[in-house]
Amino acid sequence: MSRYQRHVFVCINERPKGHPKGCCLEKGSCAVRDAMKSLVHERGLKDIVRVNNSGCLDACAHGISMVIYPEGIWYGGVTVQDVPEIVDRTIINGEVIERLLILDPGYSPERKQFRLLGKP
Amino acid sequence: MSRYQRHVFVCINERPKGHPKGCCLEKGSCAVRDAMKSLVHERGLKDIVRVNNSGCLDACAHGISMVIYPEGIWYGGVTVQDVPEIVDRTIINGEVIERLLILDPGYSPERKQFRLLGKP
Repeated sequence: MSRYQRHVFVCINERPKGHPKGCCLEKGSCAVRDAMKSLVHERGLKDIVRVNNSGCLDACAHGISMVIYPEGIWYGGVTVQDVPEIVDRTIINGEVIERLLILDPGYSPERKQFRLLGKP
Repeated sequence: MSRYQRHVFVCINERPKGHPKGCCLEKGSCAVRDAMKSLVHERGLKDIVRVNNSGCLDACAHGISMVIYPEGIWYGGVTVQDVPEIVDRTIINGEVIERLLILDPGYSPERKQFRLLGKP
């Protein structure tokens, strides 16, 4: 088991105004990150769960985006209102919230990979 | 399987000059990140491996720090010279490089957890 039982990375990438891809920052990702950090602390999970900023997760079209490891759960279109459900259902109980999953098959667990890397 | 077979987060947190904890940025973490990104692209792994900036990973004393998911491998004291070995041994072959592991037991896989979260 790694240091954290769940480690959340919230994209706070910023692109120039008017960029066709848009960016998670302008959609309000800092508020999502702040709300999630606060709630994780409030639930007494500080030592086993960490919420981090990350650079661009290459999921700009689906932002606000985040990924939760070790499972690799990709959520998109996340709002501050979704945060309590993510903390209580996904982070604490390990449930995947289907409604928030990024539907692009590239992000799904069943995606075929053409080259498999070695495993420890 | 999540979008990326391996997802590397390199801490690029910056603290004010003279801060007792120090920070990964002043130790040169951007150069480590850049070298790793370049090599991942050069090895043709762009679609299955991603290297991201992250905020503070709370491993300041061990910086330059990074964590590699889904395994949760925590490396510390990483230099640009270590990057080819990390890419070829850990990212491609799944081998853990003992010398780079953060030795603090808090980061090790065997750490006891007092509260176990739910699993999907």
